[in-house]
Amino acid sequence: MSRYVIGIDIGGTNLRGAVVDSKGNIAKRHSSSSDAHIGIDNLVCNLINLITFLRKDYNIAGIGIGIPGILNAKNGVITQAPNIKNAVNYPIRKFLSAKIKPKLPIYIENDANCAAIGEFRFGAGKGLSSLIMITLGTGVGGGMVLDGQLWNGAHGMGGEIGHIKVYPRGNKCNCGHRGCLESYSSLEGIKNIIRAGTKESIINKSLLKKIKSTPEDNLPELLYKEAKNGNRFSKKLWEELGTALGLGISSITNLLNPEIVIIGGGIAGAWQTFIPSTRKAVQENTLIGPYNKLKISRSKLKDDAGILGAASLVIGN
Amino acid sequence: MSRYVIGIDIGGTNLRGAVVDSKGNIAKRHSSSSDAHIGIDNLVCNLINLITFLRKDYNIAGIGIGIPGILNAKNGVITQAPNIKNAVNYPIRKFLSAKIKPKLPIYIENDANCAAIGEFRFGAGKGLSSLIMITLGTGVGGGMVLDGQLWNGAHGMGGEIGHIKVYPRGNKCNCGHRGCLESYSSLEGIKNIIRAGTKESIINKSLLKKIKSTPEDNLPELLYKEAKNGNRFSKKLWEELGTALGLGISSITNLLNPEIVIIGGGIAGAWQTFIPSTRKAVQENTLIGPYNKLKISRSKLKDDAGILGAASLVIGN
Repeated sequence: MSRYVIGIDIGGTNLRGAVVDSKGNIAKRHSSSSDAHIGIDNLVCNLINLITFLRKDYNIAGIGIGIPGILNAKNGVITQAPNIKNAVNYPIRKFLSAKIKPKLPIYIENDANCAAIGEFRFGAGKGLSSLIMITLGTGVGGGMVLDGQLWNGAHGMGGEIGHIKVYPRGNKCNCGHRGCLESYSSLEGIKNIIRAGTKESIINKSLLKKIKSTPEDNLPELLYKEAKNGNRFSKKLWEELGTALGLGISSITNLLNPEIVIIGGGIAGAWQTFIPSTRKAVQENTLIGPYNKLKISRSKLKDDAGILGAASLVIGN
Repeated sequence: MSRYVIGIDIGGTNLRGAVVDSKGNIAKRHSSSSDAHIGIDNLVCNLINLITFLRKDYNIAGIGIGIPGILNAKNGVITQAPNIKNAVNYPIRKFLSAKIKPKLPIYIENDANCAAIGEFRFGAGKGLSSLIMITLGTGVGGGMVLDGQLWNGAHGMGGEIGHIKVYPRGNKCNCGHRGCLESYSSLEGIKNIIRAGTKESIINKSLLKKIKSTPEDNLPELLYKEAKNGNRFSKKLWEELGTALGLGISSITNLLNPEIVIIGGGIAGAWQTFIPSTRKAVQENTLIGPYNKLKISRSKLKDDAGILGAASLVIGN
């Protein structure tokens, strides 16, 4: 096997790829737009261009791709991917293989699973045999490695950590149900907490004005800064987000007794403001045995977890 | 390998053992008292007598033992077992091996895991590759088989299904925390619900009198009959127990996407009175994908799940 592989992380907006060596070092990287909202054909075209660019000057052993959706890794088919237009039952490996010359082996996996594998192989979970990866972004995603093996369900539909119940009859979640972790500990959750705070009139005017003039995606950063500056509502918001996360981690830990829970995603940037509440809730709700063995860490690979996990799909094969 | 193995289920009160063939048929069975409360030495003595009796007339390939506690299956040591006196860091395999003549291979496993393996191999999970076993008794126990492999945590402390959080700040649980599944969907849970009902004065006098004169262990049966006869509080009690169970199953299913959840234990006898609420809560709280793939069934092997699972430890090796 040659020394290099390609790892690609497909996002709703961007395609991010890299040439990676067997130790997880990135030799070359490139990004382009994914055009996932236009359609799967455009996405595949962009993928081929990206691969063509990346493989130049490198002897590549294979390509690993992380895809935001439910898929069948064995036969290389995307079952469904809400953020990629027309990607229902789409045999992406077959179509890519036909167009990549010279041929290369192609592996696909769900993007959250890729992040979990990345951290397992090269990041905060390196050297361990089990981990739970929780990604805090627009929603809450996740992946699990148990005894060295990825587990994402009997039908590839597991790892939906965001839909663990934390408060039955609680916040409405995008999935249509109530009280899911995602409805508290994500950008969606932040919006829910702001909405409730507005209703209860517990947000001071100056903050409310800032919130209204801030683009949604920048809300976590604004509220992080406000909390660090002592703003009461912002501090309360991160406490609520962190406590819900802790309740979720506690259920997972009582059930699965993992060695480590790794927290990544954009919102993990506000680590300092929410993690004390998370740790408190975990301590208050987890059995002493698995609690004592549990480590809770921030993602080490950050934005590269997906790319490196995708690369690992090849390295591990 | 000879055709027969011995499977033994160690309980707090009884030792139950059987000679089992490779298809899970029981050829001979025997029970004795375990004397677990007196001490591990007495228990080991009773185990040897049971094994000596069972192996007579059969060519036995090995012995599998299900033990109520945390243990290290690889090195054959009981780490801790609250219901067996003096069983801390006890090398049970070593001590048993020394006294069993002629020698036989001995395998040990946690009792809830044995029940899961039993159902997986010979019961409601036969032919599947993943299952979650939930045992409703004094507490709520459980075991998991994922992709054909038992998973009970990185340190053998997983599978604590009873301590999944269903109502944060809810009922007090024996573990010292609040709102665990076990504090609703077990004999302990039934006692909690009765206590709350007494406080709220929603239990009619005649039922309250019966409850007071019924031994604790017989409460589930009494309340099952009362619910079948239309008693309002009893019906409400099973609804509450069933709903909490459904919430727990929903979190497990969103996380692990198993093929089947199997419900066993003494309280599963009241199946008809609680399962509609369970199914309703699962439907209302589970993502549509894993929900559509999920089967919820009653244990097929009932009381023999543990024995047959213990026997499987040998058959599988």
